[in-house]
Amino acid sequence: MAREQAPALADNRDVPLSAYPFRIEIPTRFGDNDMLGHANNVAFNRFIETVVTKFQMTEAKVDWAVDPVAPVAIETLCRFHRSLSFPETVRAGLRVARLGRSSVTFQVGLFSESDDQRPAATGHFIHVYSDLRAETSAPMPDEKRTLYEKFL
Amino acid sequence: MAREQAPALADNRDVPLSAYPFRIEIPTRFGDNDMLGHANNVAFNRFIETVVTKFQMTEAKVDWAVDPVAPVAIETLCRFHRSLSFPETVRAGLRVARLGRSSVTFQVGLFSESDDQRPAATGHFIHVYSDLRAETSAPMPDEKRTLYEKFL
Amino acid sequence: MAREQAPALADNRDVPLSAYPFRIEIPTRFGDNDMLGHANNVAFNRFIETVVTKFQMTEAKVDWAVDPVAPVAIETLCRFHRSLSFPETVRAGLRVARLGRSSVTFQVGLFSESDDQRPAATGHFIHVYSDLRAETSAPMPDEKRTLYEKFL
Amino acid sequence: MAREQAPALADNRDVPLSAYPFRIEIPTRFGDNDMLGHANNVAFNRFIETVVTKFQMTEAKVDWAVDPVAPVAIETLCRFHRSLSFPETVRAGLRVARLGRSSVTFQVGLFSESDDQRPAATGHFIHVYSDLRAETSAPMPDEKRTLYEKFL
Repeated sequence: MAREQAPALADNRDVPLSAYPFRIEIPTRFGDNDMLGHANNVAFNRFIETVVTKFQMTEAKVDWAVDPVAPVAIETLCRFHRSLSFPETVRAGLRVARLGRSSVTFQVGLFSESDDQRPAATGHFIHVYSDLRAETSAPMPDEKRTLYEKFL
Repeated sequence: MAREQAPALADNRDVPLSAYPFRIEIPTRFGDNDMLGHANNVAFNRFIETVVTKFQMTEAKVDWAVDPVAPVAIETLCRFHRSLSFPETVRAGLRVARLGRSSVTFQVGLFSESDDQRPAATGHFIHVYSDLRAETSAPMPDEKRTLYEKFL
Repeated sequence: MAREQAPALADNRDVPLSAYPFRIEIPTRFGDNDMLGHANNVAFNRFIETVVTKFQMTEAKVDWAVDPVAPVAIETLCRFHRSLSFPETVRAGLRVARLGRSSVTFQVGLFSESDDQRPAATGHFIHVYSDLRAETSAPMPDEKRTLYEKFL
Repeated sequence: MAREQAPALADNRDVPLSAYPFRIEIPTRFGDNDMLGHANNVAFNRFIETVVTKFQMTEAKVDWAVDPVAPVAIETLCRFHRSLSFPETVRAGLRVARLGRSSVTFQVGLFSESDDQRPAATGHFIHVYSDLRAETSAPMPDEKRTLYEKFL
């Protein structure tokens, strides 16, 4: 699948939770912790995917079980600044950072229960609208673009 | 590690959520769903572990990072009655079903967002207090037993 | 979904790896370990599911993406006898323990790299053939039954 | 924890499996697939972590259970080029791309069973040697640096 070039995004490690227009809470699970006693780095990727897919399903009305053209992950980045641990509840914030012809880039901040100013992790997640059967990229539907523009 | 004999537990598939004295909410994650479009069977095991370990940490004050004698899983059972799916929030109920010299058996019910009478899944989880260094079972501390008896 | 009654299975904790007619190797992953430094109990459930689904796909030719009638998990049990840890490779053995009208019960043993006599864990996994659209149980296809009988 | 600045790495999407000096096989698991029928994007992160931690434990002799100064993940990137699916076995290749005072940057390529020229995914994983108790970065031990230089 062809991928659009992704120039560097502004770093979002100084962005507080309140600056993200879409926010959810993600309670950690015992299995998120690894042998170092903190949430494993891949658990952070899971948290990022959770806020992105929750946004796509509830706000952008994406239905992966039905839609013939739907978003497919094409790049994920996570930077780890502070630890998170079970049993705390993570707070995740999301904003739309960039819109391409078929791609949408989300910036995400993950925050601990006790600090909504300094993120425990930051990163991005790029979805590309794709024809799921042909496995080729496809133009983003207009109503999706209109929705995403509200979260820029 | 020696395991105590476990006679059959009363089935809890007719137990409504309200009959469980300890209850938490577990939001599902996109990755909980498998290729059949519903929460994968192992995700159910994760939900059961989550309510058990949350209870152990917040009610029974177990601290796996510090306690030399702590609970170790020795048996888990899950029966699947109805499907659960992202993005719904699962409601989990827990009660203490049996206390041995060193073991505690939890019964768990998992309920969908929309039905608190008929569980999506039921099962049990047996923890045995163990000397983590020696990997041998150990008597349950008295204060733990007193706490568990409140949830019988 | 209606579930068939499951009488007690013979315990398989004394069954060595060589007695299982279907065997695979499962390399552990770092994230399988939890904060106690051993493979988490839910990772064991994942190992059991892995050998069951691998058997179903490669031996019984189940294709969950296509088949309208396919196996759905209805009960899983795991008993933990010894620990497993990353980076070791787990050896999993499977046999068919019982066949019903629509259900097949697998017994599984999980073995460490260094001991093929005493399992680290044993358990069972019950699949029920189901009409995936109607979410009702369905008779097991004859060719599946014939295949399963070879692994009894 | 302070993080060293990370300039752009050369893209490794044209690097074949044979060009990576450290390679392992990672059999997929049923639960790696998501509702789209392919390995979930977070499963790719798990594969990357698996090859990195396997390398750290078996080649660089890192022991997270014992070492007071050990590597902690500080940044992970994954780019998705082609799908992977259970039950195939993924082939993962790793090379050291950059060494800092306390950090080591690994580049990873993930390849399907059938194509060792065009990676299914590429990415990097940055570990920073850290005092695990103080949660501060620490100089990389000399014997680790010597080992990493062999995989540059």
